[in-house]
Amino acid sequence: MTTLAIVKIGGNVLENKEELTKFLNFFAALEGAKILVHGGGKLATQMATHLGIESKMVAGRRITDAKSLEVITMVYAGLTNKNIVAQLQARHCNALGLTGADANAIQAHKRPIKDIDYGFVGDVDGVDSTVISTLLTAGLCPVFCAMTHDGDGQLLNTNADTIASEIAIGMSGLFETSLYYCFEKKGVLMDISNEDSVVKHIDTNKYNQLLEQGIIADGMLPKLTNCFHALNQNVHQVCIGDISMIHKKSDLFTTITL
Amino acid sequence: MTTLAIVKIGGNVLENKEELTKFLNFFAALEGAKILVHGGGKLATQMATHLGIESKMVAGRRITDAKSLEVITMVYAGLTNKNIVAQLQARHCNALGLTGADANAIQAHKRPIKDIDYGFVGDVDGVDSTVISTLLTAGLCPVFCAMTHDGDGQLLNTNADTIASEIAIGMSGLFETSLYYCFEKKGVLMDISNEDSVVKHIDTNKYNQLLEQGIIADGMLPKLTNCFHALNQNVHQVCIGDISMIHKKSDLFTTITL
Repeated sequence: MTTLAIVKIGGNVLENKEELTKFLNFFAALEGAKILVHGGGKLATQMATHLGIESKMVAGRRITDAKSLEVITMVYAGLTNKNIVAQLQARHCNALGLTGADANAIQAHKRPIKDIDYGFVGDVDGVDSTVISTLLTAGLCPVFCAMTHDGDGQLLNTNADTIASEIAIGMSGLFETSLYYCFEKKGVLMDISNEDSVVKHIDTNKYNQLLEQGIIADGMLPKLTNCFHALNQNVHQVCIGDISMIHKKSDLFTTITL
Repeated sequence: MTTLAIVKIGGNVLENKEELTKFLNFFAALEGAKILVHGGGKLATQMATHLGIESKMVAGRRITDAKSLEVITMVYAGLTNKNIVAQLQARHCNALGLTGADANAIQAHKRPIKDIDYGFVGDVDGVDSTVISTLLTAGLCPVFCAMTHDGDGQLLNTNADTIASEIAIGMSGLFETSLYYCFEKKGVLMDISNEDSVVKHIDTNKYNQLLEQGIIADGMLPKLTNCFHALNQNVHQVCIGDISMIHKKSDLFTTITL
C-alpha cells in the first residue's frame, strides 16, 4: 500500500511568518503523496474586528453567524489558502487549494441546535476518497482549509483537526495513512514544564498507563481521544509535534499507534 | 474531438443575485466538459472601501498594490469563488474552484513597468492543459477566478476575459473549444439603441464589413480583436451574449468564427 501523509498545521505556525516559511520548506521537501490541512488562525478574528463584525461567543465557544462565515470564507479559503498554495508552488510542490465544497471532497451537515446554536458550523459526514485519490495520482498536493459544505449550497466552518482526521480515516482504504498534528509543542510531554520531556511512542497500553498517572489531562485528553478514534478506523499512525517533526532529521515528537 | 465550453461571466451577472441564480441553473444544466471563469465584480471595491483601502487609479486604470491584492484574494478566490462552487455543487455540478496558482494551472509574470506601474497584475504566459484535462476527465468542472501567479510565490490579479481566452487557446490542442463571453448585452448589436438588433454570426468577411460600416467601435473593438486572436489560435468558436445564451433554447446571441 502506498503511504500518504496528512499534515495539519495549527494557528501558531500560520501566524508566524518565519515559522510558516520553515514549515513550507519542510513540507515541500516531504516525499510521497501528501495533504495539508489548515485553519485561519487569528487573522479571521482580526479581519472581523477590522470590518466591525462582533465575534459572538456562547459558553466560551465561537458562534459562526452569516457575517462571520463570510469573513472565514475570505480569510481561510482566500487569503490564507491561496498564499500557501502560491508559496508551495514556488517550492515545486504542485499544490491545489480546496474547501470541502470543491470537488465535493468533504460532505458535512450544519450542526443541529441543541443547547447552543453554533451557527454555520459543519459536522463531517464523509470524505470522497476517490476524487482525492485522483488528485494525488495526478501528482497534486491538496491543501484543505477548514471549511466544508452541506451539498445544498451552504458553506460551513469546520474544525481543522477534525477535517484532518476525517481525511486520514477516509483515505485509509486506499493508502497507508499517517496523520501529523503540527503545533507549538514538541509532542506529548511527561513533564509539562519540560519542553524536551517528549513521550516518543504511545500505544494503547502506554496510553492507559499515562491516563492512570494523570500525565494525559486537560487539552491533551480530547486530542488523544481523537487520535485513537482515527487509529481505530484504520489510520496507520498519528504523530504530534512541532514543525521539526516534518523535517525528517528530527525524531523528537510523539508517535501514536494502537 | 470532444467539445469543451469555457464560459466567462461578467461582474453584472455576479452582482445580481437573481441573475446569478439563473445563470448557475443554466450553467449546471450545460452538458459535456465545461469551465467557468469569473472576476469579482464591484464586491472587491466595496470590501476595500469597507477596510479603508484606497483604490488607486492611474490614467483611468486600477493599480493593484499589496493591500488591494489581499482584498482581491479574499473576495475573488474566497467569497465569490467558494460560493459559486457550493451553489454549483447544490445543482449536482461537480465544481472545483481554482486560481492560476492552484495545480500551477495558469502561469503568468508581473506586468513590466513601462509608463504605468500596474502593481501586482499578471500577464499570462501559459496554461497547463494536461492538468486541466485531468480534472475534466475526472468529471470535475474547474471554476477559475481572475488570479494567476508568477511561480515564485506571488499571486497576481489578472483580467478575467484574458484568462478565459488563454484557457480556451491552451485547451484547443485537446478539445474542440467554444468560448462564451456572457455579459449584460444580447451580443454584438447592429444598432446600439436596439437591444434586439443582434448580429447572429460574424466571420472574418463580416467583421471587416462591420468595421468599415463603423458598427464595431469603442469597447466592442478590443473585445472582438481578442475573439479573433483566440480563433486564430485554434479556438473553434467564440460566442458573445447575455445569460440566455447558455440556455440552449435561445439563439439570440453572436457567434464568431474565422
